[in-house]
Amino acid sequence: MVFKMSEMDIIKETYEKIKNMEIRGAGRIGRAAAKALKEYALKISHLNEEEFKNKMREAGNILISARPTAVSLPNVVKYVLKGLNEENPKERVIERADEFINSSLKAIENIGKFGANRIKDGDTILTHCNSEAAISVIKTAYDEGKDIKVFCTETRPRNQGYLTAKTLYDYGIDVTLIVDSAVRYFIKEIDIVVVGADAITANGCLVNKIGTSQIALIANESRVPFLTAAETYKFHPKTIVGELIEIEERSPEEVAVFEDKYKGIKIRNPAFDVTPAKYIDAIITEVGLIPPQGAWYIIEKYFGWLEK
Amino acid sequence: MVFKMSEMDIIKETYEKIKNMEIRGAGRIGRAAAKALKEYALKISHLNEEEFKNKMREAGNILISARPTAVSLPNVVKYVLKGLNEENPKERVIERADEFINSSLKAIENIGKFGANRIKDGDTILTHCNSEAAISVIKTAYDEGKDIKVFCTETRPRNQGYLTAKTLYDYGIDVTLIVDSAVRYFIKEIDIVVVGADAITANGCLVNKIGTSQIALIANESRVPFLTAAETYKFHPKTIVGELIEIEERSPEEVAVFEDKYKGIKIRNPAFDVTPAKYIDAIITEVGLIPPQGAWYIIEKYFGWLEK
Amino acid sequence: MVFKMSEMDIIKETYEKIKNMEIRGAGRIGRAAAKALKEYALKISHLNEEEFKNKMREAGNILISARPTAVSLPNVVKYVLKGLNEENPKERVIERADEFINSSLKAIENIGKFGANRIKDGDTILTHCNSEAAISVIKTAYDEGKDIKVFCTETRPRNQGYLTAKTLYDYGIDVTLIVDSAVRYFIKEIDIVVVGADAITANGCLVNKIGTSQIALIANESRVPFLTAAETYKFHPKTIVGELIEIEERSPEEVAVFEDKYKGIKIRNPAFDVTPAKYIDAIITEVGLIPPQGAWYIIEKYFGWLEK
Amino acid sequence: MVFKMSEMDIIKETYEKIKNMEIRGAGRIGRAAAKALKEYALKISHLNEEEFKNKMREAGNILISARPTAVSLPNVVKYVLKGLNEENPKERVIERADEFINSSLKAIENIGKFGANRIKDGDTILTHCNSEAAISVIKTAYDEGKDIKVFCTETRPRNQGYLTAKTLYDYGIDVTLIVDSAVRYFIKEIDIVVVGADAITANGCLVNKIGTSQIALIANESRVPFLTAAETYKFHPKTIVGELIEIEERSPEEVAVFEDKYKGIKIRNPAFDVTPAKYIDAIITEVGLIPPQGAWYIIEKYFGWLEK
Amino acid sequence: MVFKMSEMDIIKETYEKIKNMEIRGAGRIGRAAAKALKEYALKISHLNEEEFKNKMREAGNILISARPTAVSLPNVVKYVLKGLNEENPKERVIERADEFINSSLKAIENIGKFGANRIKDGDTILTHCNSEAAISVIKTAYDEGKDIKVFCTETRPRNQGYLTAKTLYDYGIDVTLIVDSAVRYFIKEIDIVVVGADAITANGCLVNKIGTSQIALIANESRVPFLTAAETYKFHPKTIVGELIEIEERSPEEVAVFEDKYKGIKIRNPAFDVTPAKYIDAIITEVGLIPPQGAWYIIEKYFGWLEK
Amino acid sequence: MVFKMSEMDIIKETYEKIKNMEIRGAGRIGRAAAKALKEYALKISHLNEEEFKNKMREAGNILISARPTAVSLPNVVKYVLKGLNEENPKERVIERADEFINSSLKAIENIGKFGANRIKDGDTILTHCNSEAAISVIKTAYDEGKDIKVFCTETRPRNQGYLTAKTLYDYGIDVTLIVDSAVRYFIKEIDIVVVGADAITANGCLVNKIGTSQIALIANESRVPFLTAAETYKFHPKTIVGELIEIEERSPEEVAVFEDKYKGIKIRNPAFDVTPAKYIDAIITEVGLIPPQGAWYIIEKYFGWLEK
Repeated sequence: MVFKMSEMDIIKETYEKIKNMEIRGAGRIGRAAAKALKEYALKISHLNEEEFKNKMREAGNILISARPTAVSLPNVVKYVLKGLNEENPKERVIERADEFINSSLKAIENIGKFGANRIKDGDTILTHCNSEAAISVIKTAYDEGKDIKVFCTETRPRNQGYLTAKTLYDYGIDVTLIVDSAVRYFIKEIDIVVVGADAITANGCLVNKIGTSQIALIANESRVPFLTAAETYKFHPKTIVGELIEIEERSPEEVAVFEDKYKGIKIRNPAFDVTPAKYIDAIITEVGLIPPQGAWYIIEKYFGWLEK
Repeated sequence: MVFKMSEMDIIKETYEKIKNMEIRGAGRIGRAAAKALKEYALKISHLNEEEFKNKMREAGNILISARPTAVSLPNVVKYVLKGLNEENPKERVIERADEFINSSLKAIENIGKFGANRIKDGDTILTHCNSEAAISVIKTAYDEGKDIKVFCTETRPRNQGYLTAKTLYDYGIDVTLIVDSAVRYFIKEIDIVVVGADAITANGCLVNKIGTSQIALIANESRVPFLTAAETYKFHPKTIVGELIEIEERSPEEVAVFEDKYKGIKIRNPAFDVTPAKYIDAIITEVGLIPPQGAWYIIEKYFGWLEK
Repeated sequence: MVFKMSEMDIIKETYEKIKNMEIRGAGRIGRAAAKALKEYALKISHLNEEEFKNKMREAGNILISARPTAVSLPNVVKYVLKGLNEENPKERVIERADEFINSSLKAIENIGKFGANRIKDGDTILTHCNSEAAISVIKTAYDEGKDIKVFCTETRPRNQGYLTAKTLYDYGIDVTLIVDSAVRYFIKEIDIVVVGADAITANGCLVNKIGTSQIALIANESRVPFLTAAETYKFHPKTIVGELIEIEERSPEEVAVFEDKYKGIKIRNPAFDVTPAKYIDAIITEVGLIPPQGAWYIIEKYFGWLEK
Repeated sequence: MVFKMSEMDIIKETYEKIKNMEIRGAGRIGRAAAKALKEYALKISHLNEEEFKNKMREAGNILISARPTAVSLPNVVKYVLKGLNEENPKERVIERADEFINSSLKAIENIGKFGANRIKDGDTILTHCNSEAAISVIKTAYDEGKDIKVFCTETRPRNQGYLTAKTLYDYGIDVTLIVDSAVRYFIKEIDIVVVGADAITANGCLVNKIGTSQIALIANESRVPFLTAAETYKFHPKTIVGELIEIEERSPEEVAVFEDKYKGIKIRNPAFDVTPAKYIDAIITEVGLIPPQGAWYIIEKYFGWLEK
Repeated sequence: MVFKMSEMDIIKETYEKIKNMEIRGAGRIGRAAAKALKEYALKISHLNEEEFKNKMREAGNILISARPTAVSLPNVVKYVLKGLNEENPKERVIERADEFINSSLKAIENIGKFGANRIKDGDTILTHCNSEAAISVIKTAYDEGKDIKVFCTETRPRNQGYLTAKTLYDYGIDVTLIVDSAVRYFIKEIDIVVVGADAITANGCLVNKIGTSQIALIANESRVPFLTAAETYKFHPKTIVGELIEIEERSPEEVAVFEDKYKGIKIRNPAFDVTPAKYIDAIITEVGLIPPQGAWYIIEKYFGWLEK
Repeated sequence: MVFKMSEMDIIKETYEKIKNMEIRGAGRIGRAAAKALKEYALKISHLNEEEFKNKMREAGNILISARPTAVSLPNVVKYVLKGLNEENPKERVIERADEFINSSLKAIENIGKFGANRIKDGDTILTHCNSEAAISVIKTAYDEGKDIKVFCTETRPRNQGYLTAKTLYDYGIDVTLIVDSAVRYFIKEIDIVVVGADAITANGCLVNKIGTSQIALIANESRVPFLTAAETYKFHPKTIVGELIEIEERSPEEVAVFEDKYKGIKIRNPAFDVTPAKYIDAIITEVGLIPPQGAWYIIEKYFGWLEK
């Protein structure tokens, strides 16, 4: 990916931050992309309409390429650029970017409220990685005065669990950090698992940070409820025509850097895994709580079926 | 634990190396303890018999206290010090230390041979942590000319998986390293799981490095055979009278060191977990391969029943 | 709860009968509440509209408080009192009470017809507690000339199973009564389990008489179909925003009364438990048979989503 | 079934071919029935309208009776004969027959496309019996250039697996044939199972060729995805009112013919079995991929609910 | 069973008390039978040896017939009457009766000690029915100063749970009573289940009070350890030659007495059920803790194999 | 394998009959091999001792090579030829051949008796393939007057199920034949599954006719007991040192013969599969009924451990 023009700096910068995971989490990624598109639109608003549209589409494609598994990226780009086909495309693109940002923030709030209803006073919650939506659920429960404890996994290799732990600790919540391998050891002390989502498929599977599927398996073995908090823009429309979500495999250097004589030791570093519907008790969305098997209906309702 | 006398240096040093995990693995721990007892016996052989016995027992107790979960520690101390009750106690203690060391090394060889019979040409093997016995199985299969691949987990928090990866890589074996969270992602590429053991209980459970039990659960979900390689001195006699094996909880600093303002974030760091018998296909011992439910018979045969 | 006015006798009486379980079963409770509201409305129809409305709402709240877990109670009250916002509120409230009663009775009939389609000639059916809808299924199958046998559990602590047994026996059906603990013993003789429902949640769980969830678990272990018969007014709208259904804990004296010196023995007496969707083959409603994972759609269709 | 009139030859012939399984597979059966109705309509078009309608309905009933389990039969007959109630019934019946044939062929194409999205390069696919829709999935994946292998079961007693094997082999695909009993032996070499469907029930069960349910159970035990390819006209509307699909039991002579002295050995020959929803990862329809628990919604959408 | 001679009063009385369950629990039954045989032997010691032996054998058979499922009954009778074949048969029978009583009491003590090792400070224990051995485990843990809570099921139809609750409450232990149907509701609050045993089979199944097997199933679903406390004289030798243990079906009147017009309602009242080995974590015997699959070895060791 | 000498005809003939499966079943194979060795020994008894021994060993190796999976073959050859190391080797070999034949026939009788104890009056039994030991269980139950029914699978590709069906039918038993794919369809009508064994491994797995493991899986899903009848000479000693049993893959022509243009369709024809211990309720041997996890003890007891 080569960036030639200086006015594209904002796109380039956002692309980089998403790619190297400085910006993480589907919501933050989506809003960052919307914001970048908006700023870029402002910057190139002097161009003629044809040029403007072409450059906006080019910018959109660059952003989408930053993380192939992140469904929110094509969803937000599609949402914002839909304005290009409307009257006053320059204004519309900017307005739609703002709309997305606002409804995304509102979604996090609603999910927090709905999810917190599932947390009981005295509960110990386990979370994995660093999810805005899951944190919203936990914070809302805490704000409601519930006496809760939270276990965070480290979430190797990028250790996003530390970020979650610090966020919750700063908020005043009782937090314990454990290695990813210790989940089954502690699961009997856990009352409920709440994680975020990178994408939801038509048949109710959850694509999320590597390790999520084994936490779900462990929770299921001990009859601990496993919830995922997912805004509707994370429901992946193309899965309804059978498309598989590509699992991004990231740089080995995130895991370890070997000295030369051990370079031959391979490292595999998939960023996500797939949790089957049968291990998920419910998906908390901003429009309500659904069973995972209802995911296709959300896709049907919000995106329509491909074939009629 | 305070060490007053300089002649006890060898005991102190071994105690420290076991405690801080410089010496790791039940076999290596056992042999190191045997060697320390032997050297100490040589050093204090000028004492009168009564004093000699008292000091040897004191040394034994110090070594045992280094790691409460490691069953090989009391087993080897008991084995060596049994010589104190025989004729020529000073010589006997030294002879018994040598006996243990030799039979322990022979055990590793036999386990390698038996376990390698379970590895088929073309197999991909998953291992966890750093086990002499499991490595012996893998190396023996490789030496038999089988075309094998190995996946090693990192094994947080002390990353013993790197050590395993390097050992096998140096030996010429094709090695891939993954984070502990990626086991379920890769399990469909795995033909067999082989791990070591810290202890085996009377009802066939495996006490091993934290994370082992969730690997076993994952293997079971996908019908991948899960084997543990365990010398008979790892079978825990006291579990036959119902005693639970204490799971050592190690220093939080192994996991992470927080700056002051985040000191309030707790860290839990259990070193081991318990894998139930139902997830274990077989235990490979130096006397043959048994189902986990045969563990109590090994204990009965080698240690006798408590009550008659 | 203190009742001051004599004209409220009908509300008070119905409240008491529901609370002490003289009136049992969601349908009967619903219809009794509708009838009480209608009679109370007739009694206070001389009041001015403002006063009428206030008193009707007060009456509604009293009825709702009688059994916190019974979703049909708020549903019927809401349904009837919706008339207060229409023209001619006094007439409308009375009409709507009649409408609910009629459609509830019709629902039982339809459920009977649909459920009976699942019963085969020669089947042995197990039921638990005393459910109008489940009894309707059984009776309809019997009326269709099918040769059936029924096992009823006692259903401790209130022994509603005796009532079911007598009802079916009086109807001419071959009935066997067993203790609640004997379900797994007899399950291999059972062809199908049919129970009622106190409430259905958005993610397809069944809230029903204590013991139901363990019968479902047992049926699932032996591959015996487990059906619940539930009118749509038992689908709990608030669960779609994550609200948990409160499980009513009833008086210890329903279980046992201890003499003084044993008063210290605690008794816990939860009236309901929660059966997960995965153990339920289908829910029989008056509008058709659905998988439990379709529950949220019924809620969406009949009550709408909370947020848009 | 006695056929008196010679003009009914086409109906009689089609009835026979469906009954003796010369015509197999729900799509082919449906199209053959549509074609027969069309040809018969042309032949009797000289009759007055009343006679025409009566004879068409009689012909429809004959066709439906050929195979009780095949839901496509009543669906197509109902679809075509609906034209009798429209204006110009003679023309409409013929037009509707053509419509059904075309949309059925288009459905197979779409299912092929959607299903092929689930096949990855290098996959080994297992199929059972002889399903147009499943073959369409496999062929489409092959046409997309994916390097695939296919295992076909024999599919006793009529050995339709040979037909599937030959079709795929002629197409250039790498095919292996195994006995039905060898599925669990080979399942670890299989990446995905794709089968067709005779009918889908409201609660997501699959009625398909005998043996399908045990393949699904085996796939589930080893975590191999199990997909069924089913046109929407295979979703069984009457199951939504609880009706059970009758499982056809075919002639013992399909299995074996015994010499006289062994005539007392009974043979049972059910043609289909029922796979529960929990073993099915997704249903591939021509309108998209759904979880099995979405089946009732398809029925609701395409056929409406029975009661309102 | 008709008793003709007055000197047989003691046998008759014991027979009756065992039959009507005044004497309950395998240990108490065994000791009562031993005591009855001893007292009867003393009473008839004036008879000649031949008569003495005949009458003793007759008495033994009467006692055995009191409860067909209770393996301790034939075991103790066989044990005591083995003295008839030794020198001084009259004395020997009396001595052997005393021996059995003493070793049985000692067994309870050992089981208490071994089982208590499995109870951790702070544990909540669930027990079912009224078992001396299980109570011994609980009391020993309490005597060791562990802070424990106990849940007792009612154990319908004879409510032996009340007896257990009272025994433990009198001892100072925190006790909660629940109906049998509430086990799955409370299981997440339970740390360990400890029950007694009426018999253990060669392949590790547990025959115990009706309801035990569903508690084991429930515990297994939630990963709660399930232990049975069983003296070795409860291991059933004849199961090693495949004999099934007959499950006693007791009087319907234990469950309920119907007025005349409801006499047609059948009542089934099996006294025991069978818990499969896979749901049992360990059997606590007086000679140590074994996995259930070790039961046949106990039988082999204590009773020998039938065939050689 | 080339046979040069005419006196070896009996060995050659037996080798051929075992290889082409004219002689089937481990017991019959074992006895045929013993008989062939005896007859050959008689034929070459004129040779000097050295030559005699060499030729006998050569004959043994030929027989062993006939079917690699059949553990009874090396066991019987080893048993008979052990006589070569004793005094009077020529006589001893003949005597030992007779001993094996007699104890093998006695084993079948004992297994029949023990296994029949597990069959209840009114039971329907499912069996697979053609096992002497399983047939002995069924016949013994029938001879004891129990009213039983039997389902036999065809057992493709060689249809040994027909042989079983005819044997049982001739004996007067009610027999039904089904295709292998119909097992899950009929399993709810089955009370118990009884199959034979080709080999038992140290960790309790069953090697038996292809299809056995899926029947066991199906039985387990529906909680139907699954028993295997296995003489102790089928317990495979080498598995205790980890050796895997080689699964014989037989000629494709047993499955199907394709005309030339379809020769490219591959056929895979494994003769056996492996049933894991967890799906086996008990193994019925001639020395008693054991849990599968007791297999290693039988091997230890009858063959000794490899290493001490």
